[in-house]
Amino acid sequence: MASPGSGFWSFGSEDGSADPENPGTARAWCQVAQKFTGGIGNKLCALLYGDSGKPAEGGGSETSRAATGKVVCTCDQKPCNCPKGDVNYAFLHATDLLPACDGERPTLAFLQDVMNILLQYVVKSFDRSTKVIDFHYPNELLQEYNWELADQPQNLEEILTHCQTTLKYAIKTGHPRYFNQLSTGLDMVGLAADWLTSTANTNMFTYEIAPVFVLLEYVTLKKMREIIGWPGGSGDGIFSPGGAISNMYAMLIARYKMFPEVKEKGMAAVPRLIAFTSEHSHFSLKKGAAALGIGTDSVILIKCDERGKMIPSDLERRILEVKQKGFVPFLVSATAGTTVYGAFDPLLAVADICKKYKIWMHVDAAWGGGLLMSRKHKWKLNGVERANSVTWNPHKMMGVPLQCSALLVREEGLMQSCNQMHASYLFQQDKHYDLSYDTGDKALQCGRHVDVFKLWLMWRAKGTTGFEAHIDKCLELAEYLYTIIKNREGYEMVFDGKPQHTNVCFWFVPPSLRTLEDNEERMSRLSKVAPVIKARMMEYGTTMVSYQPLGDKVNFFRMVISNPAATHQDIDFLIEEIERLGQDL
Amino acid sequence: MASPGSGFWSFGSEDGSADPENPGTARAWCQVAQKFTGGIGNKLCALLYGDSGKPAEGGGSETSRAATGKVVCTCDQKPCNCPKGDVNYAFLHATDLLPACDGERPTLAFLQDVMNILLQYVVKSFDRSTKVIDFHYPNELLQEYNWELADQPQNLEEILTHCQTTLKYAIKTGHPRYFNQLSTGLDMVGLAADWLTSTANTNMFTYEIAPVFVLLEYVTLKKMREIIGWPGGSGDGIFSPGGAISNMYAMLIARYKMFPEVKEKGMAAVPRLIAFTSEHSHFSLKKGAAALGIGTDSVILIKCDERGKMIPSDLERRILEVKQKGFVPFLVSATAGTTVYGAFDPLLAVADICKKYKIWMHVDAAWGGGLLMSRKHKWKLNGVERANSVTWNPHKMMGVPLQCSALLVREEGLMQSCNQMHASYLFQQDKHYDLSYDTGDKALQCGRHVDVFKLWLMWRAKGTTGFEAHIDKCLELAEYLYTIIKNREGYEMVFDGKPQHTNVCFWFVPPSLRTLEDNEERMSRLSKVAPVIKARMMEYGTTMVSYQPLGDKVNFFRMVISNPAATHQDIDFLIEEIERLGQDL
Repeated sequence: MASPGSGFWSFGSEDGSADPENPGTARAWCQVAQKFTGGIGNKLCALLYGDSGKPAEGGGSETSRAATGKVVCTCDQKPCNCPKGDVNYAFLHATDLLPACDGERPTLAFLQDVMNILLQYVVKSFDRSTKVIDFHYPNELLQEYNWELADQPQNLEEILTHCQTTLKYAIKTGHPRYFNQLSTGLDMVGLAADWLTSTANTNMFTYEIAPVFVLLEYVTLKKMREIIGWPGGSGDGIFSPGGAISNMYAMLIARYKMFPEVKEKGMAAVPRLIAFTSEHSHFSLKKGAAALGIGTDSVILIKCDERGKMIPSDLERRILEVKQKGFVPFLVSATAGTTVYGAFDPLLAVADICKKYKIWMHVDAAWGGGLLMSRKHKWKLNGVERANSVTWNPHKMMGVPLQCSALLVREEGLMQSCNQMHASYLFQQDKHYDLSYDTGDKALQCGRHVDVFKLWLMWRAKGTTGFEAHIDKCLELAEYLYTIIKNREGYEMVFDGKPQHTNVCFWFVPPSLRTLEDNEERMSRLSKVAPVIKARMMEYGTTMVSYQPLGDKVNFFRMVISNPAATHQDIDFLIEEIERLGQDL
Repeated sequence: MASPGSGFWSFGSEDGSADPENPGTARAWCQVAQKFTGGIGNKLCALLYGDSGKPAEGGGSETSRAATGKVVCTCDQKPCNCPKGDVNYAFLHATDLLPACDGERPTLAFLQDVMNILLQYVVKSFDRSTKVIDFHYPNELLQEYNWELADQPQNLEEILTHCQTTLKYAIKTGHPRYFNQLSTGLDMVGLAADWLTSTANTNMFTYEIAPVFVLLEYVTLKKMREIIGWPGGSGDGIFSPGGAISNMYAMLIARYKMFPEVKEKGMAAVPRLIAFTSEHSHFSLKKGAAALGIGTDSVILIKCDERGKMIPSDLERRILEVKQKGFVPFLVSATAGTTVYGAFDPLLAVADICKKYKIWMHVDAAWGGGLLMSRKHKWKLNGVERANSVTWNPHKMMGVPLQCSALLVREEGLMQSCNQMHASYLFQQDKHYDLSYDTGDKALQCGRHVDVFKLWLMWRAKGTTGFEAHIDKCLELAEYLYTIIKNREGYEMVFDGKPQHTNVCFWFVPPSLRTLEDNEERMSRLSKVAPVIKARMMEYGTTMVSYQPLGDKVNFFRMVISNPAATHQDIDFLIEEIERLGQDL
């Protein structure tokens, strides 16, 4: 590997070369750095020239490591033209950085050079002429680079190289042609906010150690509840590590609401509990039921119509069936935006049934929740305001960096009483501030990552109207794709009608299959098409789209659009690329 | 609020002033920027001067927003001396950043200015003359600034101001005198790695979208298992969102190992299960038991000796008691480094008992696991190699940024069979690469944040020996504190003997209490001392240490040292500060 950029301000160039031809570089930087306010100019100059902070006038040519372990330039002509320039990372280690004595200057240089590598990656991510992925098979990647951990430290030059190498093989999830997951895109304000979150490096359990972030979580969750439609934004909630955990919280709280003794006595003390969700719902409902000791057999999958929406009459039938057996229906999880079809369950009808049978209504709007920001599309979630709890992942349709998932709960205080354990080392009752801001005890986690700041800062930067514009645009792009392919030769839609979300599900049928009869052999051959095209996409690195089978439907493409960088031209490209890669199959 | 630094390279100065006196600034930058390799110099110059990328020679003085929405400088003398300099954030919005057309230049400027704010914060974090916290009560903080979310976007100048304001009120968790939690300090390589992780913005579920991170998780977990002492580093594991969740995983897997039918049938199908842990153990064991449907009543707390270590004979007694009742002991969670005392349970004795009664042995080494990196201290975890699972949080004693918690499991494949749900939209079985690298289905989460990279990069930068040096130093500092205060007037130790971890637990007894008899009144007054001193610490912002009551012991200070920035002088300072703030009580 080439060394990363070696000068203080170098932008992590590909070949790592400084500019030995231009000894005036550091001097020019220094002159400019002196314009900085706050004394930082002096510090930068000191980095370039040593502790005087001013260019010296001597001459010379070597950088070396003095006996003290500090990097010094021994040349008497400064700026010198020694190959490694002003900071020689090959002689620097993590121990030379802050909090080391005199660590400030190498730290600023090192972090700036990391940042330059990151900025270069950001710019490349949006460049359509770069690959989405430089794909290597696992065994290749293991052999291509030494990833092993050792006893001895590596120098900072090697560390910068690792950063470049890691990004070289990374997926560019912000690339305009990356459509592989529900979370795509790279928001610049969200990224900045995530960098700040990392720098603040704190935990969410108490106001004491996260005052601003605790308040922002309060403000943001309240706003989300207002948008859901709960009066005055009242209620409760938390940011959790992903939608699966948010859904698990909903089950946990629903169970506790009905049988609070379960907390102390366990499932042995309660009747058999049954949860209901659609056959198109997310697998996390079953995962949660397994974990919570409810068991996957107690999650009943309700039939869906041909568009993937839960059929309310089937829900009611199954509830009655279960009650007749003496079991207790305790939760219905309706989905607002299913993972594959993007379907919205009929929330109003589900709410009526939940009310009738006194069952906790959860809405898994991990994927569809973003549509609440759009005046044009929010009707698809009509009835969400009647839910007892809602999962809503801003890291999906709202483009917030990973992770950012909220669980919103209508009844205040329930999360707290369900989960609290009163750890006296964290939640002291004799603190000098309002203890209601120590929100950590309502979580299953003890330490909890700060996930709110990126959403909050993006919201300030975009406004609700900015999220709306993004969402409307993505849905318009999905409709554009649908309109093009529904009558185009070689495509078959998995379900009829315009997409309700940005999910467009289709088969690409290669020419060799187009004239075949619709029989088992054709299905078997068709099932192999999407995996091959997908593998080729990854090997060429041109685009990425997901595929899967579902029920009796063999492998089909599921195109989803949440990427703010995608345009009509990228949709056109995708279609052409699928045809190019699948023509011979 | 002042505006943040407005020039491209400005370092986010406190008063936000550019340097209107020096129209040559941009020209000088540009001359230097031209030395950059990789074409970035041109881009920077273009930002400063417009699309030509070279300084123009005209004259003029105004920056404005053209009809196109792009920022242009209309002055004919460039560089101009208009007050807002070269990039006027007041006229820029998130929509002007990438992926916007021509978004590259404002994006580079914006991200660099965010970075400058962060670098300034980093430098301040290590400066002992700055406050650890600029404390404000929640209602003050809510009033002092407008944190509300609105329909309309804010400009980027406001966004930069929010970043500065957020950091103004943040706790400096890297400050050399921040001792409040088990996770303290700010590692520069870890921080860089976390920034990179944010920039890569991906999810851990499949190799497909996180090739490098999946491999690094594999490499790192294997190394951790080797250090635990499992032959060849074999076994399984995962990075989870915090120690509480790691402990919950252990319970979940232990239960599944004994009764795999619980996954489908729930707790109704299994006998009453009992978990054992010490009375000093972390509250997450009970929290996990509540969530998993086991119930907190089924977590039996084993007595500890005066140093906070589990008493093995009491464990065996309680196991026999439970078995006699016909219940099934399924898990013993021993603690290696308790939260308050820093005690290490006798793992070898616990392992013998677990073997005898065929019970899953879990070791919660969230806090103490780091000591495995030290040849001097790892004996305290002797017996950990006999555990079935281990929680180990590198974000605590190893100084990795939050969050980074590993659960290690001795038996391979168990996590997968316990948690997998075979979601066909993620874990397609006909992919073109080795599917064993699609590790997501072993997690409870669906999307999972990349927590491994910061640990991996720090490990490369420090080597195992670097972690060892850090840990040895922290333990030495704790012993230094203990040695000073154990015989000093005004201090009483909560337990006798040298600390085994860095936890030093003590009461500060103000002069007014020193002559009182040891009775209830004295205890009552003593219990109020630590909270007042802590409140004063926060109001002065000079340092932060935790306190709590435990059992029959009233509020005492729990000093812990994991902060790499702390020195003997900071320990001296802490003692003096406690005395200064508590003298009059």
